[in-house]
Amino acid sequence: MQIAILLFDGFTALDAVGPYEILHRVPGAETVFVAERTGPVHDEPGSLSLVARKTLAEVTAPDVVVVPGGPGQSGQMTNESLLGWLRAVDATTAWTTSVCTGSLLLAAAGLLTGRRATSHWLALDALRAYGAEPVGERVVTDGKYLTAAGVSAGIDMGLTLAGSLVDERFARSVQLITEYDPQPPYDAGSPEKAPAALVEEARGRSRFTARPAR
Amino acid sequence: MQIAILLFDGFTALDAVGPYEILHRVPGAETVFVAERTGPVHDEPGSLSLVARKTLAEVTAPDVVVVPGGPGQSGQMTNESLLGWLRAVDATTAWTTSVCTGSLLLAAAGLLTGRRATSHWLALDALRAYGAEPVGERVVTDGKYLTAAGVSAGIDMGLTLAGSLVDERFARSVQLITEYDPQPPYDAGSPEKAPAALVEEARGRSRFTARPAR
Repeated sequence: MQIAILLFDGFTALDAVGPYEILHRVPGAETVFVAERTGPVHDEPGSLSLVARKTLAEVTAPDVVVVPGGPGQSGQMTNESLLGWLRAVDATTAWTTSVCTGSLLLAAAGLLTGRRATSHWLALDALRAYGAEPVGERVVTDGKYLTAAGVSAGIDMGLTLAGSLVDERFARSVQLITEYDPQPPYDAGSPEKAPAALVEEARGRSRFTARPAR
Repeated sequence: MQIAILLFDGFTALDAVGPYEILHRVPGAETVFVAERTGPVHDEPGSLSLVARKTLAEVTAPDVVVVPGGPGQSGQMTNESLLGWLRAVDATTAWTTSVCTGSLLLAAAGLLTGRRATSHWLALDALRAYGAEPVGERVVTDGKYLTAAGVSAGIDMGLTLAGSLVDERFARSVQLITEYDPQPPYDAGSPEKAPAALVEEARGRSRFTARPAR
């Protein structure tokens, strides 16, 4: 089984590494970081570089594709090389997945049209503009399309996917070994739970508020 | 403020990237991945490479140091170059921190002697063998030493540290933007919660069971 994790400049590191840390443990899985070019790919803010081992052209039939998001997603929304690759591999994937604004890339590729999907809470409206039906849940499954909410939600998505790829026992064993027993010191992880002033500040800074998707 | 995240071959990716994703957002912080040599550093199982931007020699006075763990930690327990660096930078850090078995490296450097600290649940006994007082909590503070439990606990540690480095309001804003509102699909993230059979299996596979620390 091949699991391809897409990288592009300006990705959010945890979007990619959360699912990776879960999914690389699937027995028999080959997990590969893939990008337009091999070599270091820089996150936003640029202080982290993950190495892409293969080019898009070298990964033609992954069983699972994982698309992270991040500020750099906006620069890829009309990149036909990347969107065309998503469409091509999606034709044969068992699972096509995303974290955060990675779902906007899937939607821009036309893969989420009419489908229930999620994204970073700030990007749910933009997701609708690209033809998907946004759902404000942490992990959303519609057929083989598995989308996760913002950044840290990729860990929950990865565990859900591990349960499907192998079985629930395996997923629980991965949860145990990664000690995923979250105990956030605060309770502000969603717009429903965070203080209203912080939600408004985040909306004010968001490019999704300032620049509608189309 | 400089935040140095240590890398070594065989680290666990999420141990490093969890805190990174929180801490790089601290206003004015320079976050730098550091290793014995610059360039790609490979995780265990080897399918992920993070780039070290600076050598140990180039980072002499970070305000915060973050030490991840992972299977490769065992190979560093007598690496005087790395342990000596930890001792040297600890002399002037505001915070010396670890995730997972990274605390064993801090302990091997002599920095946790007599201190309350945590580690991956499988490594708590080993932590005692190196002179620390193991505590089975997710994030443990003893003076300026902040240690986190296994793998995913680095996110909780990062938020705790963000609250101390800036303030609680800032930490909540980071929790909101990283949408850290965890909803694991299973409830097996600790040895107390996981099925006993899975806990026993994990113990059976663990190098900490097979090979006592000393």
